[in-house]
Amino acid sequence: MTSPRPSPFDIGLRANVRPLRDDDRAPIEALLRASHNFSERDVAVALEVIGDALAGDPEYIVNVIENGAITGYECHGPTPLTEGTFDLYWIVVDPRAQKRGYGRLLLRAAEEDVKKRGGRMLLIDTSSQVNYTPTINFYKRNGYHLEARIHDFYHPGDDKLVFAKKL
Amino acid sequence: MTSPRPSPFDIGLRANVRPLRDDDRAPIEALLRASHNFSERDVAVALEVIGDALAGDPEYIVNVIENGAITGYECHGPTPLTEGTFDLYWIVVDPRAQKRGYGRLLLRAAEEDVKKRGGRMLLIDTSSQVNYTPTINFYKRNGYHLEARIHDFYHPGDDKLVFAKKL
Repeated sequence: MTSPRPSPFDIGLRANVRPLRDDDRAPIEALLRASHNFSERDVAVALEVIGDALAGDPEYIVNVIENGAITGYECHGPTPLTEGTFDLYWIVVDPRAQKRGYGRLLLRAAEEDVKKRGGRMLLIDTSSQVNYTPTINFYKRNGYHLEARIHDFYHPGDDKLVFAKKL
Repeated sequence: MTSPRPSPFDIGLRANVRPLRDDDRAPIEALLRASHNFSERDVAVALEVIGDALAGDPEYIVNVIENGAITGYECHGPTPLTEGTFDLYWIVVDPRAQKRGYGRLLLRAAEEDVKKRGGRMLLIDTSSQVNYTPTINFYKRNGYHLEARIHDFYHPGDDKLVFAKKL
């Protein structure tokens, strides 16, 4: 018998997206450290946000996806000073579990939550650096467009890109 | 004898820009409430930031300008996750003391502080609403250009504009 690679559809049936719990902190830290896109400072900021979300800060809403183990998480929240705009602050999938549809399920969960809260637009900031190209293509495939660019934002030669989707 | 209106140059000689102190809190709240551009929520956020700055939060650097009484303040700080980018979060001049050069002195103080800290760019977010037109013209006169726009950011029809200046 062969054991074919599961399709995203199969994973969608088995994977479970649920709100963050206290005991997710350690697996999330491991996920962040396994990703090559995050600096030590990025990891520290991400974990601070996880801590704030666990403490009940309404600015941050976090969902994890699990399929046996936790394979990713997303964090979004209402953009300060706006009415109905939300930011997707983080979306992370275990690098050993890429291309199986987990990211799409997490993104869909964020979008559904934003709509449930009366949101009308979701924004995603990202970097123009070449190692973010797969991430950018993922946003484009999911209906996001490049709404704005701030040249040399992160550091010289590294622009901030703002992707947007009306919900 | 006539008593001519003082020129910005005269005011520049007499006005004093200095770091925030505890007893500036009440006059700053009065300034914010006297300005028609700020909602109750904007005022609450601004005062929270003032409180953070007074508590020593390194994310927020505040200077006030006084000429007898306090006539304005600015708040800037390092933009999270960037190297060398700073945000001007607030610049407020008493509406009864506009067009006398206080804003320019505050903006210059912010730029000098950013350069002193090794910053290379200062960003200013503002709204596309018509009541911000004088503010936008003020930024343009001081060397800022429109770097990015996010349509419908604050609410439908009210875009976020990002002005930038390389320092």
